[in-house]
This record gives sequence, C-alpha cells and structure tokens, in this order.
Amino acid sequence: MRGALLAGIGMGYEGHLMKEDCGVFGVVLDNPEASVYIYYGLQSLQHRGEESAGIAVYDGSETHVQKGMGLVSEVFDRIKVKSLKGNAGIGHVRYSTTGAPSLFNAQPLVAHLRGHSIAVAHNGNLINAQQLRDSLEKEGRIFQTTSDTEIIMHLMAKNLHKGFENALLEVMKSIKGSYALLVLFDNTLAGVRDPNGIRPLCLGKNEVGYFLSSESCALDVVNAQLVRDIEPGEIVLIDGVDSSQLRSVKAESEAVNPMHCVFEYIYFARPDSVIDGASVYLARMEMGRQLAKEAPVDAHWVVPVPDSGNSAARGYAVESGIPSVDGLIKNKYVGRTFIAPEQSMREASLRVKLNVLKELVKGKSVVLVDDSIVRGTTMRRLVRLLKEAGAKEVHLRISSPPIIMPCYFGIDMPTRKQLISAQMSPEEVRKLVDADSLHFLSLEGLIKSVGMSSLCTGCLNGNYPMDVPKEGNKYLFEKK
Amino acid sequence: MRGALLAGIGMGYEGHLMKEDCGVFGVVLDNPEASVYIYYGLQSLQHRGEESAGIAVYDGSETHVQKGMGLVSEVFDRIKVKSLKGNAGIGHVRYSTTGAPSLFNAQPLVAHLRGHSIAVAHNGNLINAQQLRDSLEKEGRIFQTTSDTEIIMHLMAKNLHKGFENALLEVMKSIKGSYALLVLFDNTLAGVRDPNGIRPLCLGKNEVGYFLSSESCALDVVNAQLVRDIEPGEIVLIDGVDSSQLRSVKAESEAVNPMHCVFEYIYFARPDSVIDGASVYLARMEMGRQLAKEAPVDAHWVVPVPDSGNSAARGYAVESGIPSVDGLIKNKYVGRTFIAPEQSMREASLRVKLNVLKELVKGKSVVLVDDSIVRGTTMRRLVRLLKEAGAKEVHLRISSPPIIMPCYFGIDMPTRKQLISAQMSPEEVRKLVDADSLHFLSLEGLIKSVGMSSLCTGCLNGNYPMDVPKEGNKYLFEKK
Amino acid sequence: MRGALLAGIGMGYEGHLMKEDCGVFGVVLDNPEASVYIYYGLQSLQHRGEESAGIAVYDGSETHVQKGMGLVSEVFDRIKVKSLKGNAGIGHVRYSTTGAPSLFNAQPLVAHLRGHSIAVAHNGNLINAQQLRDSLEKEGRIFQTTSDTEIIMHLMAKNLHKGFENALLEVMKSIKGSYALLVLFDNTLAGVRDPNGIRPLCLGKNEVGYFLSSESCALDVVNAQLVRDIEPGEIVLIDGVDSSQLRSVKAESEAVNPMHCVFEYIYFARPDSVIDGASVYLARMEMGRQLAKEAPVDAHWVVPVPDSGNSAARGYAVESGIPSVDGLIKNKYVGRTFIAPEQSMREASLRVKLNVLKELVKGKSVVLVDDSIVRGTTMRRLVRLLKEAGAKEVHLRISSPPIIMPCYFGIDMPTRKQLISAQMSPEEVRKLVDADSLHFLSLEGLIKSVGMSSLCTGCLNGNYPMDVPKEGNKYLFEKK
Amino acid sequence: MRGALLAGIGMGYEGHLMKEDCGVFGVVLDNPEASVYIYYGLQSLQHRGEESAGIAVYDGSETHVQKGMGLVSEVFDRIKVKSLKGNAGIGHVRYSTTGAPSLFNAQPLVAHLRGHSIAVAHNGNLINAQQLRDSLEKEGRIFQTTSDTEIIMHLMAKNLHKGFENALLEVMKSIKGSYALLVLFDNTLAGVRDPNGIRPLCLGKNEVGYFLSSESCALDVVNAQLVRDIEPGEIVLIDGVDSSQLRSVKAESEAVNPMHCVFEYIYFARPDSVIDGASVYLARMEMGRQLAKEAPVDAHWVVPVPDSGNSAARGYAVESGIPSVDGLIKNKYVGRTFIAPEQSMREASLRVKLNVLKELVKGKSVVLVDDSIVRGTTMRRLVRLLKEAGAKEVHLRISSPPIIMPCYFGIDMPTRKQLISAQMSPEEVRKLVDADSLHFLSLEGLIKSVGMSSLCTGCLNGNYPMDVPKEGNKYLFEKK
Repeated sequence: MRGALLAGIGMGYEGHLMKEDCGVFGVVLDNPEASVYIYYGLQSLQHRGEESAGIAVYDGSETHVQKGMGLVSEVFDRIKVKSLKGNAGIGHVRYSTTGAPSLFNAQPLVAHLRGHSIAVAHNGNLINAQQLRDSLEKEGRIFQTTSDTEIIMHLMAKNLHKGFENALLEVMKSIKGSYALLVLFDNTLAGVRDPNGIRPLCLGKNEVGYFLSSESCALDVVNAQLVRDIEPGEIVLIDGVDSSQLRSVKAESEAVNPMHCVFEYIYFARPDSVIDGASVYLARMEMGRQLAKEAPVDAHWVVPVPDSGNSAARGYAVESGIPSVDGLIKNKYVGRTFIAPEQSMREASLRVKLNVLKELVKGKSVVLVDDSIVRGTTMRRLVRLLKEAGAKEVHLRISSPPIIMPCYFGIDMPTRKQLISAQMSPEEVRKLVDADSLHFLSLEGLIKSVGMSSLCTGCLNGNYPMDVPKEGNKYLFEKK
Repeated sequence: MRGALLAGIGMGYEGHLMKEDCGVFGVVLDNPEASVYIYYGLQSLQHRGEESAGIAVYDGSETHVQKGMGLVSEVFDRIKVKSLKGNAGIGHVRYSTTGAPSLFNAQPLVAHLRGHSIAVAHNGNLINAQQLRDSLEKEGRIFQTTSDTEIIMHLMAKNLHKGFENALLEVMKSIKGSYALLVLFDNTLAGVRDPNGIRPLCLGKNEVGYFLSSESCALDVVNAQLVRDIEPGEIVLIDGVDSSQLRSVKAESEAVNPMHCVFEYIYFARPDSVIDGASVYLARMEMGRQLAKEAPVDAHWVVPVPDSGNSAARGYAVESGIPSVDGLIKNKYVGRTFIAPEQSMREASLRVKLNVLKELVKGKSVVLVDDSIVRGTTMRRLVRLLKEAGAKEVHLRISSPPIIMPCYFGIDMPTRKQLISAQMSPEEVRKLVDADSLHFLSLEGLIKSVGMSSLCTGCLNGNYPMDVPKEGNKYLFEKK
Repeated sequence: MRGALLAGIGMGYEGHLMKEDCGVFGVVLDNPEASVYIYYGLQSLQHRGEESAGIAVYDGSETHVQKGMGLVSEVFDRIKVKSLKGNAGIGHVRYSTTGAPSLFNAQPLVAHLRGHSIAVAHNGNLINAQQLRDSLEKEGRIFQTTSDTEIIMHLMAKNLHKGFENALLEVMKSIKGSYALLVLFDNTLAGVRDPNGIRPLCLGKNEVGYFLSSESCALDVVNAQLVRDIEPGEIVLIDGVDSSQLRSVKAESEAVNPMHCVFEYIYFARPDSVIDGASVYLARMEMGRQLAKEAPVDAHWVVPVPDSGNSAARGYAVESGIPSVDGLIKNKYVGRTFIAPEQSMREASLRVKLNVLKELVKGKSVVLVDDSIVRGTTMRRLVRLLKEAGAKEVHLRISSPPIIMPCYFGIDMPTRKQLISAQMSPEEVRKLVDADSLHFLSLEGLIKSVGMSSLCTGCLNGNYPMDVPKEGNKYLFEKK
Repeated sequence: MRGALLAGIGMGYEGHLMKEDCGVFGVVLDNPEASVYIYYGLQSLQHRGEESAGIAVYDGSETHVQKGMGLVSEVFDRIKVKSLKGNAGIGHVRYSTTGAPSLFNAQPLVAHLRGHSIAVAHNGNLINAQQLRDSLEKEGRIFQTTSDTEIIMHLMAKNLHKGFENALLEVMKSIKGSYALLVLFDNTLAGVRDPNGIRPLCLGKNEVGYFLSSESCALDVVNAQLVRDIEPGEIVLIDGVDSSQLRSVKAESEAVNPMHCVFEYIYFARPDSVIDGASVYLARMEMGRQLAKEAPVDAHWVVPVPDSGNSAARGYAVESGIPSVDGLIKNKYVGRTFIAPEQSMREASLRVKLNVLKELVKGKSVVLVDDSIVRGTTMRRLVRLLKEAGAKEVHLRISSPPIIMPCYFGIDMPTRKQLISAQMSPEEVRKLVDADSLHFLSLEGLIKSVGMSSLCTGCLNGNYPMDVPKEGNKYLFEKK
C-alpha cells in the first residue's frame, strides 16, 4: 500500500503506517553541477522520505548545505539548487524514525573538523545509538541534534587523525545496526553499507561521473548505468570520475552476512528499481503469481489496492487468468496536506480519497490484492466500500506473510500491539475485515518470488541479523 | 493521458494539451454546512479545473464568496470553508478557456441586483459571447471581467424583473453554445443545461439535501445517490430539501437535441462517474476491447500510458488475452509545481516524471495504449523510451479516432495546425512517433463502446451541434 | 496621534480610531514607466490607507490592474510593478470606510465599456450612495462590490455616450458628498474634486509628465513641482505631457463653495504636504504656538505624544520657551502585525509599544501635547504611564477643539457615543484622564493657525458643507 | 543615526553601517510562561539585531528552542511562543558580525551534554576565536556552525565535569574579547560579563521572577525594576525566584577593568535604557548641550537627523535657545524590505524615505545634528537635500568625536578605508559634505556628557581594553 501510505499522512485512513526511513544520493562529477544531479536523484527517491530534504556539496574549499522541511520540490527551487556549486556532493530525504521531526535533525549533517569539511547522510538505524551517545557525552562531547547521524559524525571526528579511510573502518567497528551511509570528506565521496547489507545502496556511472544511490531508479533519471550494488560490509571511496579514482575497502573485523531487507521488495522500494540483483517489479509480480498458485479463487475481477497492490495484482491476474481492473479509484489531488474541514464528515473524508467503481464491482466476485496488512483498519474499510457497492464476494489476497514482529533496522512500524497479525490468526483477521476469504503469501513463496534467500525476514518470523533490544526498550522506542 | 496531463502543467512533456474548462457543484441542505459539502464535491471535480476554485453560499440574507488561484486544497483551509455558513451554495473549479487566468475571472461570480444576491458558476463556452458583450456594452453596461459568466450575469439582471425562472428562460434564448450552469438566487439553486446537453450536469440526493454536480463521482463523496442527469434544455429549480421544493422547467423555444461531448467519455471525466446513463470506466474498457477487435496484434504485454490509457488497456487485455502490466512508472511527486533546475538537463526532467520498467519490456513486444494523440510529441518520446529500454516492438493503440477539428464548446484544444492528425495520416503519424504499428479506434467502435449515438463528435468528424465560427475567428480564438 | 494610529491597528491601545479613507495618485508620462512613478507616489501616501493598494495603467490598447490587501510594499514587488507597462495610470491606497475590507473592494476599479477601458480611484464618501445604488439596481444594473466607486463607474457607463468629459459632468450632478476622483479613460487622465473641495487633490509637473496626487508630499518623491491644487468643482483632463494637452472644466450646475477638511491639517495629512496653499507642518506648529498663548502653563518639559503631537509640541515649545523633549519613546518594530502572545499580559503589550523616559520626567512638570482626543482611553493610559514614572504634574494640551460630531465625508470616526467630547465637558475629560490641567485649542485659534476660513469644521461644530443624514441612518453607518 | 540605520538595511542610503551585534534576555520565573516574557523582552531589544531571533526554554526535563531568520514578530507567532513552556529560558536577537547570516548560526545554541541541556546566547566578539577553534578541532571536536557561541559551548563541555559554575570560570579564563553571555544549564540561568564589561548586561526583578537583559528598557516592558548592572568579570547564577537562589561569583584570575563601550551611549542603546548607571537619553541630551557650548552658531532652527540625532538635537536646542524642529520627515512605511522597483529612479528611492520640509527651511539657517559620521555619503545627501530646499546655511554638529579606528568588540563597523574620518580631517569632511560649518564633539565633552571615564573609546582614539589584532588580520576580518 505504498500509494495509500505516501498519500496517507494525515489522510484519516493510514495504510500500514510503515515508513521507510531515508533515501541517499551522492555524486562525483567532472563538472560543478553536483547539486542539480542530486536534485533529480532525490526526486526519484522521494518515496523513501517526505519529511525533509537536503543537499550538501563541496565547492573546492568548503562544503555548503541547504536543507529544509518538506518535499524536495518544496525545499529546493531553481535558485537554491543552482547556487550550490561543486563537483561532489550528497543528498538526503528522510522520515524521522529516530529523532524528533525538525529542521535541526534534517540531513546531510555538515561539520568542520581539523580543517576539513565532512558531510554525512544516513539511511538505517543504529541499535546501539544510546550507548554510543552516552559514552561520547561522557567524553565531553556535545550533541546538537537527536539523530544517529551526529553520533557517526563524532566517531569520525574521534578517529580522523588515523585518516579518512581508517576512520570509516573504526566507525564501522563501533556502530551496530543497519546503515547505508554516504560520507563526503572534502571532495572524496564514500559509500558504506553495513555488514548485513540490510538497507540498499548501489553504484552507477555515466559519462560525467559516479553515483551512489539508495535505489537504481534514481540512476535512470540521470541516465547512469547501474554498475553494481555496494556489498555488505564494503566501503567504496570515490575521488574523481576516472575508474582509477574508485577504490573498495572491506571491513575486516565484521562477519559479513548478507541479509537484505525483504520489505524493500514487498513494499518500500520503487517498482522500477533493481536491488541486490532482483527487479522489484518482477519480484512483486511473481509474488502475485505465487499467491495465485497458493490461493486460487474463482472470481470476475482482480482489483488492486492502489497503488501498493498494483504489481502483485498484475501477477495474480496473469497466473489466474482473471482480468485485473481498477475497481478502486484514487483521487490524485488529495495528498499530504489534505485537511478535513469537518471532523463530523469522516465518511466524506475517506471517499474523497478513494472511490469504488460501482458499475464494475456490482454483483461481481472480486479478488482484492494488497502487499500487506498492518493494523487492519484500512482493509476493513476497503472491503466495506466494495460490499456497499454491491460486490458479491471479496477475496483478500496479501502478497506477503503476516507481519508479526517489529523492525529494528530502519522501518517505522507500529509496535506489536498495533500489528494485527501479532494479535490475531489469519482467520480472525478475515472476520475482522469481513472478507469472504483471506490468504497471505507463504514465506517460502515470498523467498522464491524474490529469488534469493539472503533476506532479513525479522518482521515476518523474528529471524533478525543480530540480537535486538527487547520491545519497549527505551533505547529504541522511547522517542517514537 | 489524463494523468500525464493533470500532472503535466509545466512538466516539459505535455499530454494532448486539452484541458477541461470547469467543474461545478451546488447544494441545498437542511443544515448550514453547504460550504463543507461543496468543498468535498469540488475536491472530486478537481480534475476539471486546477487553476482556481471558489465557493459561494447564501447565509439567509446575503451571499458570501471565497475564491482564489490554485487547487481547492490550496484555496480553502479549514477556517475559510467553515466560516462560510449557509444552507445553499455553489462551487466552481476552472481552467481559463476564455478569459485571462486571474483571480478576477475566478468563479462563482457574485453580484447584487434589485436587492437580491445572485451567484453564477458556469461550465462551457458561449459561441456568441462577443456579440452579446458588444450589445450589452452598447446599452451602457460595464464589464469587470473577461469571462462569459459576467455576460450571463448581465442578461439575468436585464430580465430579472420578469422573475427568476423567466429570467433564466430569457437568458437561454440569448446565449448559444455549451453550458452547464449553476445559479444561486438568494436561497434558490438553479441548474441549467444547454439544449444539446453538451457539458454534463446531474442531480443527486441524500438525507440532508439536494446536489447538482458536473459528474456523479462527486455525489459519491457526499454519499448522495445519483437521481438523474439534468436533461438537455432543462432548468431544475431547488428551493429546499423536500421533493416538493424541486421543479423542472423546459426551454420552449429551443430545439432540444442531445449531443453529449464524446470526449468526456474518452478522456475528461473521472472513470468512476456515470454520465447520461453511461459508466465512463465501462465505456473506456469497452473502447479497449473494441480496439483489440479492430486492431489485434501479437505481443507479450499490454502497457497503458499512465493514467490516461489505464482503462482502455485493461479492456484491450481482457479482449486479447495479453496481460496488462505497468511498464511505465510515474513519479507521483512530480506535479504541477515541478521546476527543472537546469534546462540543459532536459532528459532528466523527463525521466524524473516517467520511467520505463526495463526488466519488464526488454526484448518484449509491447502494445502501448493511450486515449488519444494530440500533438504527437509526447508519444514519440514514450516510444523512444520503450525502445531504448530494449522493447522489441511497440504497437500503438489509441482508444479514439484521430482528432482533426478544434472544439468550440469548452475544451481547450490546440488549433488545427497543432493537431497532428489534422496534418498527417495515421501512417505518417506512426512514422513520426516511430511505432511498429498504430491504430486508432473507429468512430463506429467508439460510439458502440459508449453505447449511445447522441454524441457531439465535432472534434473527430466536424459534426458540431450548431454552426461554429470559422477557425481563426477573433470571437473565439483571439487571446482575450 | 497619527503615529500611534498608524502603528495602532491591532495594537491594543488605539489612537482616536480615525482613519483617513484613501489616497490617490495618477500620472501621464512621456515614457511607459507610469507604474513605477505611481509605486513611489503611493509609498508617500501610505498613511492615507494601509488596508489595500492598487495600480492600473493603460498600455496603449488596454488597462491592466494589479491590486491586493496590505501595504504598497507588500502588494507590489519589483516584478509586478515593472510588468505593468504604460504611459498613463492611477493608483490607490485605502481603508474601508464604506464597503467590507476585501480584495474585491480594492481600487482602482477597472471596467470595459463600449470598447473603452476605464479605471476609477476614489477618495471621499458619497452621502447619497445608497439612493444611487438602489436606483441603478432598479435599472437592472449589477453590483459586484460594495464600494461607492462602482456606483461612479455605473454612472460613467450610463452617460458615456455623451463623451468622457460630459459623462464626468453628469456624474458630478448625480453624486453628493466628498470626492477626489481619478478617472483613467483609455489614455486620458481626469482629476475631479467635489464642489466643496473637501478632500485634497493637487497637480504636479516635472520634465517627464503630469501628476495628480492627494498630497504634495508625493510630488516631492518623484521630483515634481506642485503646480496648483485642483479647485473645488473642477475637472482637470490630461491627454499628454504637453501643457496644451491639459484642460480644465468647471461643473456648472453646482454651487462651488470651498470647505476643505480641517482634519487634514490637524492630523491626517503628512506634515511635509502643502494643501490648498497652507503648509501642514507650519499650520500644526502654529496650532502649538496658539495653544501656548491660549493656555500657558509653567513646566519643565514639553513632551509630544509621538508622532501625532510632534509638530504642535515644537510650536508650543517655541512660543512658551519651555524645551521640548522626547519623554515617550515608541518602539519602531511594533507595527500593524503585532500580536500579543498572551492576553493576560496586557500591560506588557502596551509598554512594548511605548515607554516613558523615567529619568527625564521624574519629579518634573510636563506639558503633554497631542492633536486630538477621540475616545480618551489612550490618553488616560499615557497620563498614568507618566505619573507612574514620577511626573509631578501632567498638563494636557490638545491642538484642536473637542470633536463632538461624526464625519460624513470620508473619515472613519467613531459614533457620537464613542466620542468622549460629545459626552463630556473638557473638565470631565480632564478628570477622566487624570491630567492636572487640560486645554483644547479654540476654533478661532485653529482657523487662525491654518490661515484660511474656508474649512469644513463639521466634526468640531456641526457646520457641514451640506445636509447630512441623521446619525444612525442606515445609508451611512450600517456597513461599518 | 540609529533610526536611519535601523530602517536602513537595503534602503540605498545607509547610515554609518554600524550594526550592534546582538541582544540577550533571560528569565527565571515562578510560572511556566518564560517564553512569553522573553518574547516581550526581545521585542524591546530588537534594535540590537534584526537578522534572526530565538528563544530557548527548559521545561523541567529538556530544553526546547525555536529560532528563525527575521524580526522577533516574524519568527514568533502566538502559537510557537506559547508552545514553549518552561520556568526558565533565554532569548537572543542578532546581526551577524561573525559567522555567515544563516539559520544554523542563529542563537540560542542548544546542546545536550552529559545528560544535561545547555543553551547559550552571546552578545560580543571573541578576539581569540580562531585560535580556540583550531585547538578544539585538533582535539577531534566538530563544529556545525561558524559562530563564536559554539566555541563557548565546546569549552563548557570540556569543563563541565568540574561543575557548572567552575566550567563557566574556566571558559572565562580561555576566551578573550567582549561578551555578555546568558547560559541556561537545565533550570539554572547564568549571566556572565567580560572583565572589562564592554557589552552591557543588567539584572531586573519583579514579583514573578528574575530577568537578565542587555538593556534596561526591556525590563520596563515586563514591569521589572532594574536591580543593578552585572559587574565586569561577574557571573550571576539564578536557580529560582527567591533572593536566596541568586548567587554572584567573580572571575579571580582576570584583571577586572571596567571599559564600557561608549558607542552604546552615542548611538546603539535605546534612549530609554540606563546602562552602568547612566541614562542614555540624558547622556545624549548632554552631548547636544556640550556640543552647543563647544560649537555655538547663530541659526533659525536646530534640525535632527531622524531618529539618530533626535536626543542630541534637543540638548543643543535647550543650551543654544534655538528651537528644534522636524525639518526632515521620515517615511515610516519604508523599512527593511523596501525594494526599489527601478534602479534608474535612485533619486525617488531616497526621497521616498526622507523628505525635507521645504516651507520650514527655505531661506533659513539650520543646525543639522547627528550622532556620528561614518562614511559621509548619507550626510552629503542630506545637506544637499536641505540646500535644494532653500536652506541658507547648513551647520553640521556631530555629537561624538570622529571615528578613526575599527571596533573589535562586537560592533560591525566598516574598515578604516571606509571610515571617512580615518581618511580626512574634519575640514576635508566639511567640504565633502558641503556643509557651511562642521564640528565634532570633543572626547572630553563626550566623557563629561556620559558622566563616567571607564569607557572603551577604541574607535575614537585607539585606546582599546586589550591588545587587538592588526587590521586585516584574518582571524577577525576575513569573510567567514
């Protein structure tokens, strides 16, 4: 339900409330238009963070940063972007999984240390953040934000006398959790991925330079080719646009063990991205096909929940032979800023966002496809809308297994109490949402659909890449 | 290509550049929240006009109006909407087909005459506007706007001594062209449709009142039932929420001859609307099926141009058995306000809005479906994008016949010189856009798909409901 | 108390609440920068109206207008002003004495009639507005605003077939009240002053063109010389920058009888203006000298209420030999937009605007000088502030006679009930404000100070230039 | 020329270009409305910094800060101020003497260290800032701003393990220059003044709490009594509203030597403030009297340059017996945001801000009084304006000695090259500005007028409180 979610902040009917934390995009160019490329890259990563946006570029002697609350297009206009001149730079879009939502937590974070400029943009979540922070404060260090990124900045500063590359390696030894980091040290761009490769990060190249991006869809925009994904535990250092100016370093002391976040494939990533070798759209279509094999049903139409269920619905349709049609119509104009003028008109507030195509569903059996169920409230409303419109039967098909555990690695999920599948069996959920049948994709089917087994499926079966704090632990959850 | 268009203003690649002029929504309620209902109604009619929005309500002694440039959600916030108290009111969203785009042309237009308040909201285009205006100016009347609506207001004022109903009938005798009018005369709401019923207007009802709307999708939002369409040449007068307070009057002197705009079905109206008895979505699906019958092709995928080709693509898929998939991915965040920071990066400006799913189309034959071709430039780019992504063949299927003539009845189309099909044969267009094959739906197929023959197809075959000015005629086409 | 007033909207302590209605500025130039000159002129007339501002210019074929709510500097920025190109134009700043404060009442009002463009900017108040409006509505004319100016526009339209000049003469026959009108008819600029010359209007010239302005201070800004005042009952028509292109016409049927508003001299006009032959500053200084002669007192300091009492205080000081010092300090930053964050801190809200120089007044006798007392509340607070700061004695000297009657000619004054001097004797007022002595300037002293007897002193003695409606009459006061 | 300056940013005619760096205001209350009191206090200190404003309050467990670019009234609206709840807090207004003008340099700076919240607001300039910063960076500390305040923050962090009070004493040992510091450490408010007491800081009290303010005028606003000035080298610590909760500590190791900035008396401070025992207004009046004694002249009028020359002009008038009148009229509406729409109209841009009262000065001898001459350009224009208006003679009297040296202690002055008196003799300056005579107040006369000799007069005679960097030294003057 990405679509529902993206348009969902303040919409009254929230999707599964899971928000991707952040997106990062970095460039090293043969021209000083780094900020313009980053601007385009961030536009394509906007779905990874709608709360704030920032761009930092190194102009040959100093690093300048512009950031603000809001969408990329709101924060940056022509003048600001073009006024940031420099050959190398990094950009960031974010939600606030940790740290309060404020401009002072917006990234990239930029600092001056030992005569150098350093800028950091971070996607992920450190599970030992509070311990690191406590220890740094005890050393007399000051914190001006509440974001994990400032911790990384301090660790860099502590170790910088060993050189930039070694400082990065030292930081990797200290921090635990998920991270796809971009670090701009004067004119050197570094991309760092945690030893499990939980969050995505890839490398692209075109005739004007190198690019590091959370997703490959942003490479398409700048007409760059996807070279490869950054490997788990790898640091890529880029000093210039020549291939000799790109080096790779591996973290030695860490046991590298790829466990890529499965939810990128299920919901978060853009369908036109290829992550760790797998096409997101094809994976989702395959989830739909697999679902049709695991849970076939006789019906007139396959109807996706727009837009999160689109890809899986196409796959279900292909496999089942049942045509997919757009039985739910989304109002494109009702976005983030929608404010209901009258709370009493709750019903209108919902219908203005999503309408049922009555003529299509009346008297028909419908397979309703979505990527996941989080709290169940939205799904219940959608089933009700379809039945009120005359649907004879509504068969719910979900292209992922039930979510039963929280995420500790960068995805802003509800606590277990709010996760419907942590509280109820599928049959109980079916009754709650009043569907005629309900089937979740099996974990095996999911893994088969993505086409790889090196996946973090912690939220689906508790199989996390590392020890995690107990739920309710203040280090992780107090701020949210 | 509605989607492309709606998001297309200032996007660099415009769709067919055809803009619906306006949408209207009126209510008579048993409570003073008219403005809130109108607010929701206009939100659902937003696709009919993104330039300005306005709401006028009668508070029992006077009519108050709020209007502004921008989307409904931009113009109205909670306070303004709720501060407009009254049981009856009308609202309007608009593009500027005639009249410069400025606040002073925004509607509803409100005036005081003979101790009464009158508010007018108009969807359509008067073809004798300049003659009427000249004649009114000669009588010493003043014009403060350049919109047709002020002409209607003056004609109302001239005839009001005969009573409101008779004044409306007199106005209908004078004006020629297309009009779906809402007139609020103190607390009486009138809905008026031209004798050809060119532009849509329908009546709805729920437990709190009556509604008049350009499209039925806005009735869904306020949970009202579609009672019926206003008939060509009919005036509906609503004094209150009781059924006895609704009267219908027919224009006597006019030859009533239904000729509903076919482009509402092809492109303009929302798919979830039912207009003059036909479901827009079902009509579009049927256009796709018909197209598959008329122009079958062997291919791997049916790919819609999002979002304008969606419905027809589903139909084509159903009829042909070729699965429909989302081979073109639209960036939801790149909207009206997108400003390219760097003109030199034209390519990025395009790709940031629409990306091809390379993994899906590579080496495949694709049926690309859209609703129409206007200037051809966008289509050429889309075909090129698909081919660059490795598509083996691109077969273009258009769910309407070629557009060869301008519209004089409220749709903002390019002149004939800009209409590609007025200048080229289908085969020449195919070569221009570099498709492997190109087929337009036949006029017969289109009429059959909509399911009615009482259609205005002027832009497709020059068969207009009335004599039209020659192209280039200053009355219609000079930039006012 | 202009200063207090200007800064006073929303300040919690309002001055006498009298607001000048409007200021007008018109130009005919030998170059197309009319709008830029008007912009500067309006900046100098800003004190005559802070609510809205507008500029209309004729570009050779049409009249374009830009207007908005707020100060001139808020409404117009570089681009908008420069984008209005044309050799002739008019501008307007306003308060809303009649008509609700909204953009749709902002001036200039522009209309098209009989193939011509006409723009009207009006300073004054018509006392037969409602009768005229009723009669025009009965003729089937429509009103889109609630301002007097639209009445004038309709009367122009009715009579325009007789030619522009004759139409103006006809309008003058119909309207009664005060008016300093600027009318731009295509490229002809007309300035019209009512037969009593109540509101000011003057003519200026420099090497690039002619200027018509409410006050001469605005002529200084564009480096123009004051040629003369427009005479009561005169129409000046300007077709170009050559002296042969300026004509004067006198209204025949009206009994011309100069009665210039005395309050322009007392308070409203800028001190650096010369109106109908008298310097405003010198008149005010003379009022202070006269006051010192009429009501001498032994004291240490003369202290003006900033800024409204400044000029008279200097005169009082010169005549009395008592030095004038700045015992009350105004905070320049606390302006129109000041919003007290906490209503409970009423005292702070006052002090933040005006502070007493304690070291100066402690133990001293003070002559506190202001131009008038309207409601008395502000004066009571000021006397209290001075006494709390240790002033031994506070002798209040007012440079005008008591205001006992309302104004019907364009000044927004409280009703008689709110006018303290209409309710109390000077001695009662003295007790109310707790001053040690209080003296008002005599009417004779005032007239002598201005240096002319052809003054409207209606608010001071009820001697109006024409019959006025009884107070409470709906025609005049219902809207306010 | 405060008035000229304050209104002067972007005005085209700048005053002496000297900008006060900052103003600070702190409170400890018996109620949680600290932010509201700070809001009022900052409004009264707005003249000390128009660029940014900020408020930080401690809510019992954490310190929250709100800051932004612009005036206090622009940054804070009702909601934001009231949403900052807490009994203790500090506020800041600033110009950017050091550090680029950006939000990230806005104060108060807030950080978390060792489990505590600390907020710092600083008025002054550290002359060893760069050395301190270099040394802190070498220790691996990171700088996120370019302001001196972050240096102080790091020094606090380094020393905090010794306790808050000792940390402050350690900081005082390290930093050199001028500082009036407010430090909020959790709920403890500290006020610190440098050993020379260069920048002002005073203590106030009323029934609800204690206040620390740059100037006493801000105490008046919250109805607090001025208790005393903070002494040079003193730290005042306030834990609560009881007198037992206020402690004073003196820096031991520093040679305390009062040298208060004389320019606060000449120009910067508000006239209604009392600083280090001397009333600013009385000092300025006395400067005027002294000037009249030192440089008498026979003339008709004493005319102040508004508003910077007002107080001295009153004194000159009192001593000389020549009446002071307002010969130059300032347009109150032309403020910070004035943008000339047309550069070619330079003359109009000047006149719109300041007009001459021609009727008053024509044929008269005028004593023009201002507080200082910095670059001479403005003064030349003013003299020319007066002469063009017909003034017979213009005698210039300046209420301070010539400024010949830069300031290193917090006042943003031009370099020596731009200081007219560093380049020319008074007679040469007289010729340049075309005055008939020109006299500066003597240094002795100035000191006598202020009534104390413990003054920093560095800019007047090079007698600084400590060794200063050579002009051009990168530490101070490079554009950071």
